[in-house]
Amino acid sequence: MKNISVLGSTGSIGRASLDVIAAFPDRFRVCALAAGRSIERLAQQIGLYSPGLVSIERDEDVPRLRALLPPGFRGRLRIVAGPAGLEEAASLPEADIVVAGLVGAVGLRSAHAAVAAGKRLALANKEALVVAGELIVATARRSGAEILPVDSEHSAIHQALRSGKREEIHRLVLTGAGGPLLTRDLATFPGITVEEALAHPTWKMGPKISVDSATMMNKGLEVIEAHFLFGVAPSKIDVLIHPQSVIHSFVEFVDGSLVAQIARNDMRFPILYALSHPDRLPNPFGRLDLVGVGHLAFQEVDPRRYPAVGLARAALSSGGGMPAVVNAANEVAVGAFLEGKISFPDIVHVVSETAAACGRVPGPGSLDEAEEIDRTARQSASRIARMLARAS
Amino acid sequence: MKNISVLGSTGSIGRASLDVIAAFPDRFRVCALAAGRSIERLAQQIGLYSPGLVSIERDEDVPRLRALLPPGFRGRLRIVAGPAGLEEAASLPEADIVVAGLVGAVGLRSAHAAVAAGKRLALANKEALVVAGELIVATARRSGAEILPVDSEHSAIHQALRSGKREEIHRLVLTGAGGPLLTRDLATFPGITVEEALAHPTWKMGPKISVDSATMMNKGLEVIEAHFLFGVAPSKIDVLIHPQSVIHSFVEFVDGSLVAQIARNDMRFPILYALSHPDRLPNPFGRLDLVGVGHLAFQEVDPRRYPAVGLARAALSSGGGMPAVVNAANEVAVGAFLEGKISFPDIVHVVSETAAACGRVPGPGSLDEAEEIDRTARQSASRIARMLARAS
Repeated sequence: MKNISVLGSTGSIGRASLDVIAAFPDRFRVCALAAGRSIERLAQQIGLYSPGLVSIERDEDVPRLRALLPPGFRGRLRIVAGPAGLEEAASLPEADIVVAGLVGAVGLRSAHAAVAAGKRLALANKEALVVAGELIVATARRSGAEILPVDSEHSAIHQALRSGKREEIHRLVLTGAGGPLLTRDLATFPGITVEEALAHPTWKMGPKISVDSATMMNKGLEVIEAHFLFGVAPSKIDVLIHPQSVIHSFVEFVDGSLVAQIARNDMRFPILYALSHPDRLPNPFGRLDLVGVGHLAFQEVDPRRYPAVGLARAALSSGGGMPAVVNAANEVAVGAFLEGKISFPDIVHVVSETAAACGRVPGPGSLDEAEEIDRTARQSASRIARMLARAS
Repeated sequence: MKNISVLGSTGSIGRASLDVIAAFPDRFRVCALAAGRSIERLAQQIGLYSPGLVSIERDEDVPRLRALLPPGFRGRLRIVAGPAGLEEAASLPEADIVVAGLVGAVGLRSAHAAVAAGKRLALANKEALVVAGELIVATARRSGAEILPVDSEHSAIHQALRSGKREEIHRLVLTGAGGPLLTRDLATFPGITVEEALAHPTWKMGPKISVDSATMMNKGLEVIEAHFLFGVAPSKIDVLIHPQSVIHSFVEFVDGSLVAQIARNDMRFPILYALSHPDRLPNPFGRLDLVGVGHLAFQEVDPRRYPAVGLARAALSSGGGMPAVVNAANEVAVGAFLEGKISFPDIVHVVSETAAACGRVPGPGSLDEAEEIDRTARQSASRIARMLARAS
């Protein structure tokens, strides 16, 4: 029986994780939930999963949450709030596994706290690795914590890597569907609406990650994530477009064998893998019908359509704090796009201008420094986004 | 440095194996070659690979072989002949690995001799497992010999299985290109010529195995082979048509993950894997360009087009000596088709009629019994083939 702390429990990863946990009541139990402001949904989850600890974003929501709880929970549930509450949920002594399902750099400290406490980190919150990959990996190495990826691509790589040794890797290839803009006329990109950018053809996800899929910045960040997760040199990590999203990624070994993992487009698959590893448990969420998929296609990434991939790669090659800068600028830019302030192509402009404005940034030596890099880059990106918004 | 004995050295598997060995002179050395009647090619191979022992099919070819040898070899090379010679090449004390590259049931005793002597068996000669799978596997278990598959499908399964545990297998799926007759009008099957049946779209192979690909009996025999190689129940082994032959097979695990191996259509890939396992060596034979392949498609096996698959499956379910009967009947039938004596659809008729004529055959308790089953089935199949030839 594994005790699980789910951070970001009301988001898409959190909800999928609770689905998985509910399907294996003999294996998994929720010990803590952490959420932001979706207090009603959180109250329902508390009724269903009976955690001992709950963390929410704002202190002022605590009374409302208490009021929404089923009678049996009102007295005995411990509720904490704010960044300290989140870290407490991430490092709870009885937790074996922490699902990091937050989105963005806000998840950094809780992800770090989980590995510092020696928990298995089931990591969906890729920005944590992007912003402070070296710190988190070093901390995990010291504490003996495992980091298991909770996204389809890195889960696929993790599974494929079992077929060979580390020194036998020729390259990792991350596949991406190419998002909703794969075939759209490039000349019409300035007119892309929020709705169009969110209309991902094969995955249902939150808005931030959906836009990241449309720009393929998501894939760029995944290259960075893969570098830190698997300790593979950036030059050995490639990206390939695979519109059907059925081959979730693959490893090419030195002997010419490509080992791929293939599954339904359902986050519960990589979540179950991350929770149950090194075991594989019978999956009650349906099976892939490869014949029904029709055919699988592959194409190279066109840098004019997806300049974000190159930007992220360049940041990884520059090293130091540049991945954090690109990630922060991207979060700001996506926010501005979702609020209708800048155009779709301007997302990438904000990122590249921010990277240029920040120059070379040394790698963070601490979480404080990582957060400082993040903060500075956000300020710079916000300024640039406002400028672009005025210019348009 | 591994010493390798190559049985069937002048055939397609043997030649590909020698290519692989030549590419890694620091790793592999040829200690023995066994061939049939291609004496001139064998003489060339002896000059190139300097084995200490050579086995040929017929005693009377020994003087001709000696005459063809380069001067330095004439005196010191040991040449043996016949079934005993083949077994000697398979169990040579200095051999670490035996490549079983013979075609058909004729390879049975040498494959068995290799595992009895504790050698690693790099097995392309699937008929040996089909005819006497239980005996060979039991002998390997006793001696500690490993059996590594040398065909693309089972090599793919072997590689994919490394990503999970045996009890986590949901099913093995063997892919097959569907051969040259995948889209041909069924009504025209009686008129299929030998040339048409040999025109495999994606693999270049010998005539027997090419016809087996056209009927997909090859895939049926592979189901039987997979059962013995991996100890997986017949009900958990499926076949899927994949015309591009790029995904070489895959394992579906209980958690819904399909793990697939993908590579160029080149036998040197599975040969290198079988020789170098558990290592993977850098492959000098080119890499797969997944984008260049275009797209990958999958379809179910149509039992009207490919009745041989069901026949082989039924034989495996019946158990005992039935796989050996089906294999023997198929060898006779393919021979008769290649000689122009029976039509293409009659290959399967010969097999099904032979299976019906033999009734239930108990499993062989010894190689002698296995050979007796093989011999009896061949006689029966020959009789049926002659009958069908006269009737047409």
